[in-house]
Amino acid sequence: MRPVTVYDIAREANVSVATVSRVLNNTAPVKKETRERIVALMHKYQFQPNALARSLTRKETGMIGFILPDITNPFFPEVLSGFDYEARKLGYTYFLCDTISTNEENERLYDRQYERESQYLSLLMEKQVDGIVMIGGRVDLAKPDPELTRELEEVAKRVPVLLLNGSLPKTKLNRVSADQKFGAELAVQHLIDLGHRDIAVIGGYSKMTNTQQRLSGFRSAMKDAGLAVRKEWILTEGFSVPKGQEFAAKLLSAKRRPTAIFCMNDLLAIGALKAAHRAGIRVPEELSIVGYDDIPQATYSIPELTTVSLMSQEIGRQAARTLDKMIAGKKVPLFQSIMPELVVRETTAPLSGTNFQ
Amino acid sequence: MRPVTVYDIAREANVSVATVSRVLNNTAPVKKETRERIVALMHKYQFQPNALARSLTRKETGMIGFILPDITNPFFPEVLSGFDYEARKLGYTYFLCDTISTNEENERLYDRQYERESQYLSLLMEKQVDGIVMIGGRVDLAKPDPELTRELEEVAKRVPVLLLNGSLPKTKLNRVSADQKFGAELAVQHLIDLGHRDIAVIGGYSKMTNTQQRLSGFRSAMKDAGLAVRKEWILTEGFSVPKGQEFAAKLLSAKRRPTAIFCMNDLLAIGALKAAHRAGIRVPEELSIVGYDDIPQATYSIPELTTVSLMSQEIGRQAARTLDKMIAGKKVPLFQSIMPELVVRETTAPLSGTNFQ
Repeated sequence: MRPVTVYDIAREANVSVATVSRVLNNTAPVKKETRERIVALMHKYQFQPNALARSLTRKETGMIGFILPDITNPFFPEVLSGFDYEARKLGYTYFLCDTISTNEENERLYDRQYERESQYLSLLMEKQVDGIVMIGGRVDLAKPDPELTRELEEVAKRVPVLLLNGSLPKTKLNRVSADQKFGAELAVQHLIDLGHRDIAVIGGYSKMTNTQQRLSGFRSAMKDAGLAVRKEWILTEGFSVPKGQEFAAKLLSAKRRPTAIFCMNDLLAIGALKAAHRAGIRVPEELSIVGYDDIPQATYSIPELTTVSLMSQEIGRQAARTLDKMIAGKKVPLFQSIMPELVVRETTAPLSGTNFQ
Repeated sequence: MRPVTVYDIAREANVSVATVSRVLNNTAPVKKETRERIVALMHKYQFQPNALARSLTRKETGMIGFILPDITNPFFPEVLSGFDYEARKLGYTYFLCDTISTNEENERLYDRQYERESQYLSLLMEKQVDGIVMIGGRVDLAKPDPELTRELEEVAKRVPVLLLNGSLPKTKLNRVSADQKFGAELAVQHLIDLGHRDIAVIGGYSKMTNTQQRLSGFRSAMKDAGLAVRKEWILTEGFSVPKGQEFAAKLLSAKRRPTAIFCMNDLLAIGALKAAHRAGIRVPEELSIVGYDDIPQATYSIPELTTVSLMSQEIGRQAARTLDKMIAGKKVPLFQSIMPELVVRETTAPLSGTNFQ
């Protein structure tokens, strides 16, 4: 006689297999009478739940680890949201591992980040995840410590690892990434098309690959238009609203001012808006501002931000689809590129006579 | 002869126990020569790493599950940040479980939330976490389905569970919560002190305990001041920027308008700012707006939001300290209350002749 399965129990109890699974694993509420009916059938057939429950659980809840650098930066929840949508459809659950460290005053300690990544990588291995997605942190470094690279290569030998919006130089780890250089070109070309010639760029961290690529896009668009890049109009080392305000205030208080600012993310652009407001400079009439990322907050400001959509949702979805294939042992491209799109809203306008040049 | 321990290895290798642990568990990069020295000693003493590594790991990385409703709502990353700061000091790592569901168009499906909570509760049990923190979702419901309550009570029998900013009625689950009613009273009293008498309230969900408590604070402050509450000036069912804009636009287009709006969160207040801007109504000269939560975005807007700080960082920190005690089997109060604080910025002003009443 073949052993009784969850399918037999479900059929006889007139419920779905999922309901039987819920009773077995106590994963979700089941009506008291239904639960009692199922439990009674299990006793009747001397049903052995453990092994079966286990296989059922394994099949139903493949687990993925998602390591990211700072959940308070609204870009990352957007990527996650796309990832989550697709991952759930594919039957996965995921654990989020945020690697930012803060001190007593809630200041961000970015240098502690890599250590926490290591901690989480180890934990995820121990918890036997099916795959790992990593964004930010060491994945953003143009020249990471070789030990950081080595560690991730070791992990990737044991479990599929997918890097988002970055890379680890000299490794063959799979990647899905927005074309950062192209995104910056879109932003700067938009300003040039509006007649701007005096264009500044603010934000980013010079050690980060993303920043280097965006700066490269900025320079390339300026060069193609025959425009000069002024060194004092490139202000880096920061990604926050206060930093954007600080950078823009510096630019706007100088004797010679730019007529347009390209910001390395939307938070910086929101800060630039504040600096312009404080300085009594009207946006977009007297100053054009372009952001980058297209986070939800880009539409919260007055005026709403013109920005570059990094297609964060799409990056997340593509990540889930790709990792699923990797977990199934299927072949995937080593590198997949996502094309950013320009989103024109209210902070950019043609260079006009009202500009203060 | 007593078995060699990690402490012996560490001493002889002249490194910390943490470094030996790293080599054992491959949790973080260790210099090549140091690693080789440690591995050589392990061979020399026929050190048995597995069991010891295991106990060391257990001791060093207690794991906590943190279940929250929607990471794209900036309030939750703030609570997390405080939790993280304290939890790390206490030696814990945590996995974040976001229970929001979205559809193809990235719209939020709040009714799927409770099912995902169940899924994560089950997974966290399977992964043997030391404790679970829960915020939002079923914890916010004034009248949750009894099965949702029962499930969490069952979990709490096996592992410490702490509820944040909410409760499950009729249960004895531990809670840390902001005093929501008091917070609303602070906001409304501030408006009354400025001379406002025509005060509207927007946002929240009527089925949520938090909303009911804040509405109760609103009514109580109005009553104490002898002011009438106008039914058509209470607009609920929503927590987003677009909803805030929609509610405020409705209020501002009516024949009789309020001179002040109390918003159930800061996102709604940002929406109200946008509605006022579109209607050509100046804030705070012609309309005062108060938010709630004090998320970072409260300082991104122009003008910056007057709001009620729910002390989100402090809630997170207190949660970590409390859960740590629960895990250690120590006694903790069943309920701990955190007092909100009023933060006066730029969106509120005295009722003046320029008001349009």
